Amino acid sequence: MSGQPLELWFRLRGADGAIGPGKVRLLQAVRDEGSLSAAARKAGVSYRRAWQLLDEASRAVGQRLIETSQGGVGGGGARLTSSGEAVLREFQQLETVLEAAAEPALRRLANLDGD
Amino acid sequence: MSGQPLELWFRLRGADGAIGPGKVRLLQAVRDEGSLSAAARKAGVSYRRAWQLLDEASRAVGQRLIETSQGGVGGGGARLTSSGEAVLREFQQLETVLEAAAEPALRRLANLDGD
Repeated sequence: MSGQPLELWFRLRGADGAIGPGKVRLLQAVRDEGSLSAAARKAGVSYRRAWQLLDEASRAVGQRLIETSQGGVGGGGARLTSSGEAVLREFQQLETVLEAAAEPALRRLANLDGD
Repeated sequence: MSGQPLELWFRLRGADGAIGPGKVRLLQAVRDEGSLSAAARKAGVSYRRAWQLLDEASRAVGQRLIETSQGGVGGGGARLTSSGEAVLREFQQLETVLEAAAEPALRRLANLDGD
């Protein structure tokens, strides 16, 4: 085994919904784009689907994750709340932390050749 | 968030194939059943598919993972090689290790309420 051998996927399940890579990508897109419709486009989902996903993410965490500067069809500006920023940051860090934690096992697996 | 909130999934990708939860489950079934046909049945795949999956797992790790006591259609006895045992053990430990590594981030996410 060589290269970057570990692929990780993880999801947090709350009492009322879950948040995983897709919703985190959407949060990142909201952050980057400053608009929910642009974020939905970037993530390759409909505006309506983006709302649903972010609503589920919000319920999973029990916090509002985005705030919009105006409502209406097509949406106005949107940005992450401090909770949204925290969720995004924790997920991004989790990937690094988990890869580091897996490193010893990966090394042992790579050395099975000596068996 | 409460209960057991983190769902983890991971896969090791080798130069020539990958090994993830399905193949690990199959290794476990070979270990439990002592027979490839019984393991395939337990894992809910065909005998032929079980062979393919274990062959891919073996190529991913670069080691033989199972040995059979006799060949032929339907297969005879099968058991894990020492490499197969090691792969199974590492995967099972990885889950525990990764959950422990994720714990601080999970605690912070659970405490977002204070935001």
